[in-house]
Amino acid sequence: MNGKTVIIGLVQMKMAHSPSANLGKAAQMVEEAAKKGAQIVCLPELFKSEYFCQTQDDGNFKLAEPIPGETTEALTKIAKKNKVVIIAGIFEKRAEGIYNNSAAVIDADGSLLGVYRKMHIPEDPTDYHEKMYFAPGEGFKSFETAYGKIGVLICWDQWFPEAARLTTLKGAKIIFYPTAIGWCPKDSDELKRNQLSAWQAIQRSHAIANGVFVASANRVGVEENIDFWGSSFVSGPFGEEIAAASPSKEEVLVAKCNLGDIEKTRHGWPFLRDRRIDAYKGITSRFVD
Amino acid sequence: MNGKTVIIGLVQMKMAHSPSANLGKAAQMVEEAAKKGAQIVCLPELFKSEYFCQTQDDGNFKLAEPIPGETTEALTKIAKKNKVVIIAGIFEKRAEGIYNNSAAVIDADGSLLGVYRKMHIPEDPTDYHEKMYFAPGEGFKSFETAYGKIGVLICWDQWFPEAARLTTLKGAKIIFYPTAIGWCPKDSDELKRNQLSAWQAIQRSHAIANGVFVASANRVGVEENIDFWGSSFVSGPFGEEIAAASPSKEEVLVAKCNLGDIEKTRHGWPFLRDRRIDAYKGITSRFVD
Repeated sequence: MNGKTVIIGLVQMKMAHSPSANLGKAAQMVEEAAKKGAQIVCLPELFKSEYFCQTQDDGNFKLAEPIPGETTEALTKIAKKNKVVIIAGIFEKRAEGIYNNSAAVIDADGSLLGVYRKMHIPEDPTDYHEKMYFAPGEGFKSFETAYGKIGVLICWDQWFPEAARLTTLKGAKIIFYPTAIGWCPKDSDELKRNQLSAWQAIQRSHAIANGVFVASANRVGVEENIDFWGSSFVSGPFGEEIAAASPSKEEVLVAKCNLGDIEKTRHGWPFLRDRRIDAYKGITSRFVD
Repeated sequence: MNGKTVIIGLVQMKMAHSPSANLGKAAQMVEEAAKKGAQIVCLPELFKSEYFCQTQDDGNFKLAEPIPGETTEALTKIAKKNKVVIIAGIFEKRAEGIYNNSAAVIDADGSLLGVYRKMHIPEDPTDYHEKMYFAPGEGFKSFETAYGKIGVLICWDQWFPEAARLTTLKGAKIIFYPTAIGWCPKDSDELKRNQLSAWQAIQRSHAIANGVFVASANRVGVEENIDFWGSSFVSGPFGEEIAAASPSKEEVLVAKCNLGDIEKTRHGWPFLRDRRIDAYKGITSRFVD
């Protein structure tokens, strides 16, 4: 995979109320990305519905579906037809009372490579009630796709350097972040700027610390109390911005990732060589009181 | 300490060939910071000499000194007189053949609180031959100073999220990074911009991920093959820039840190609550082959 160029696509979309409409639009946008040359395409988190976690409502569990299920079956056809890998954020029902915020990874031949289940689950008193809906995932993963080994993490995971590190140690060369994050419309412009800037900085830092590509696909549009800020982007292993989308428009963002940059960057800045693995045990502590 | 404001000072200085001249200038600049109100002042890494690690030369070991020793004795007087905490990067001799790249922490009453020894040691084929000179440190630390609990990490440590995390888990509210980093003058402007930008992003990311203040004190000036890029800065726990110095001038940078911002930021973004300490064990692996 070293030296190879991989073209990736990020789907930045606005969600309608109807899940079938969202699925149809997502399929179209994946095909558009494929036409632009994309080989691996990432959809946003929970792309088939509006972001229902703004309220705590048992009724929303009926939006969940198994994997494989209706969504992966539809996307499997698109993947096979267009020879693209698809990363799809899905509200997964594994059993009665066991639901996950998941991402299915479908390979370019249409086979289901696996499922990543969001490890870090947020709970915010106003806008993000995820702990009510989702069981936490059970491990970090990488996936050997037709176009190279990738990792998937989901939204809140992006604030945790441990998640990106563990995904890198499993061999991922590109880490995808299906995302649903936005502003509270009543916040000040300064707060909004700082939030977006922090979100960009922390994800670029994962690229830098690990010498990997990072690609984040967010939704756009206002849904109740959240103005989803789009700004989907791709960072190279040096933390350099390769491509970035607008904060409010639907877009198919396509970027070329020269995987040879990973080795070059890691030779120049050999952080993975110098990690003090003998001294990191305390990372599994909550706090040292 | 919550709600308290702490004023910190970063000394950005150019080093002369003479260690005693550097010590004299450092003492002056600490006093200048104190006059501007600083309560905790950080000197750059190995501030008493030019950056000798550009060459591998046994003769440089004679620059090393014990802690306590000449440098801490001089700074102790300055600390006591001005009631300031001083963080001083020192080439430490612990025994024949055991040398460390260290930072002494001197409390505001002049007592030596402790020593942090650089954990991550770089080795770059052209400019940074540190592995020849320095034994790696033996642990991450925090220090309870007169003005609050702080952490100290040194230069190359700043690229490792584990270091900032472990220092935070030991209670540090502000992490100081005495630093010696610069450009290779023959590199392209684009590469230089990307390097500086990555250096800023990774350190801001530690502030964000951990909800702490981060303060980095770098040297300036050209020494042989390195153009030290200054740009010493302070980031708030939201990743926002509070103060920043120029890339090439000697400066005493003073910044006000409202420690109440830590709790506020951690309530809004409760990453420390949501860390998956049950799933981070793999952090102590080099790689998962």
